[in-house]
Amino acid sequence: MRFFDQLPPQPTPELGFATSGLNRAALHRESMEWQREALANPASRFIAICKDTPVLQFDGSTFDPLFDRQGAARLGDPVQALFLGLDGNVPWFGLNIPAEQFDDLKARSDLKLIDMRSIAMQGLFQPGVISTIGTAKAMFLWHQRHRFCSNCGAASASASSGWKRICEACKSEHFPRTDPVVIMLAIHGDECLMGRSPAFPEGRYSCLAGFMEPGETIEDAVRREILEETSITTGRVRYLDAQPWPFPSSLMIGCLAEATSRIITIDPAELADARWFSREEVRQILAESHPGGMTAPPRMAIAHHIMQVFAEG
Amino acid sequence: MRFFDQLPPQPTPELGFATSGLNRAALHRESMEWQREALANPASRFIAICKDTPVLQFDGSTFDPLFDRQGAARLGDPVQALFLGLDGNVPWFGLNIPAEQFDDLKARSDLKLIDMRSIAMQGLFQPGVISTIGTAKAMFLWHQRHRFCSNCGAASASASSGWKRICEACKSEHFPRTDPVVIMLAIHGDECLMGRSPAFPEGRYSCLAGFMEPGETIEDAVRREILEETSITTGRVRYLDAQPWPFPSSLMIGCLAEATSRIITIDPAELADARWFSREEVRQILAESHPGGMTAPPRMAIAHHIMQVFAEG
Repeated sequence: MRFFDQLPPQPTPELGFATSGLNRAALHRESMEWQREALANPASRFIAICKDTPVLQFDGSTFDPLFDRQGAARLGDPVQALFLGLDGNVPWFGLNIPAEQFDDLKARSDLKLIDMRSIAMQGLFQPGVISTIGTAKAMFLWHQRHRFCSNCGAASASASSGWKRICEACKSEHFPRTDPVVIMLAIHGDECLMGRSPAFPEGRYSCLAGFMEPGETIEDAVRREILEETSITTGRVRYLDAQPWPFPSSLMIGCLAEATSRIITIDPAELADARWFSREEVRQILAESHPGGMTAPPRMAIAHHIMQVFAEG
Repeated sequence: MRFFDQLPPQPTPELGFATSGLNRAALHRESMEWQREALANPASRFIAICKDTPVLQFDGSTFDPLFDRQGAARLGDPVQALFLGLDGNVPWFGLNIPAEQFDDLKARSDLKLIDMRSIAMQGLFQPGVISTIGTAKAMFLWHQRHRFCSNCGAASASASSGWKRICEACKSEHFPRTDPVVIMLAIHGDECLMGRSPAFPEGRYSCLAGFMEPGETIEDAVRREILEETSITTGRVRYLDAQPWPFPSSLMIGCLAEATSRIITIDPAELADARWFSREEVRQILAESHPGGMTAPPRMAIAHHIMQVFAEG
């Protein structure tokens, strides 16, 4: 169908957190009875997070993020359970393990606690599994940072199998945050604009990025962020692709923007440097053969993918 | 430049809240001194919101949303001021007027309080002005619903000229929410899938829509929402356009999806009906000449625009 001609593959291969095979089966979220049965179902699988860190089973050579009931019970009583969805007919839950258990779990030889970034960077599991671990991590951090009602200050409680919080005092409902972030290359002729934050490893350059604000279109946010960080003006904007990014709970929206100026003035609060890169240089950076030793973000990051789209023209 | 060939005009003409001419000038947000001077500047302009409703000056025939200092002072002491940005060199502020003033303001013959939807529907002001009133409305509602720290329950305070809140007790920073929503047509051959919510006026059909969840790509969210509401399966997804929607603070992300099934089973909790519409029927609906009296959302809504893209092929 012509609306869908010329679309790139979805999801973009290698993009971290972007491929979920799980059916979220939201209709089950409201049924306490269904939940009870599913939690008692011997086939059910559990993803465990402790102090924002995934807990993995380790048999000396391979890692397994999916606990069965018995294995999950040995991690200690969870702060809460989150119904993640169905893998075929198999219910998957997230379990938030109390922070006090962290040292005990770390001491166990049959477990490894590996931070989310490393899991994604190393591609330790199937993309769908990594994406679901990321969802559990993002959701539990949201719960931890939203134990109180922002409307009245009373303690709130998890509801809908972990997908919202309710305040009994003022009856407010609170839903998980998903914070949209624009991430983009400004393009001028055959060159693109990249910058480096003061926190980057040496030689690393990447796309510019920033949180969207209320009242903006995606295209306005792209133009504002590029202007704020480098004083470069831009015109038309093209959406490329999006990536969930569970640090803590962003939606990265990847774009290209048509630059209408050339002279860079960086905002030193945001960037250590920004400059124009030729297509050939970006190709070298992606191939890890840049003569100046410049490097790109990893393949699993949407920044890498945006650079690739530019490099391939 | 070929990356930007064949892009539609940006922003889409007639799309409400999507055109802001204001420079947000975020660099001034941290300077109390700059703010004080700007608030005292006789050229500065003020957008006033009371109980989530824009306050407009009215001279008997025309409306004006931009108060000068004297006019603003006569509205009563604001709960807070929000630095909205610069129109050229002219600072614009939002003022949140206490709810207790509502009846007094409503009684004044030199003012009209008109709800945000009506202002946008009637296109009362230039698009950039409507967009900025929408931003002020969304921001103040966010402040009202976030007076307390979600992390510790203590009262929080506005900071950065209204662009964040800080909790003195636990030192948490809280930023305004922008909630991404996917809104889309599933397309099968020459037909598209539209539904009606129980709350719609009679005969009204529109795109399906729903809030994104943590861990989803835009494309995954589109497929999940269509499946949940109608049981229709979809494949490829194409991004079209986005619209800020200040009710309360959403980012509507407009898409088309390629349907891979035909038989509709609606979720009665979400929809009163859903059905397939031919291109010709959608054209009639948009032209307000549908023989069955079916109608579309207004031109200022992205749903109307998505229907138009489909109708025009």
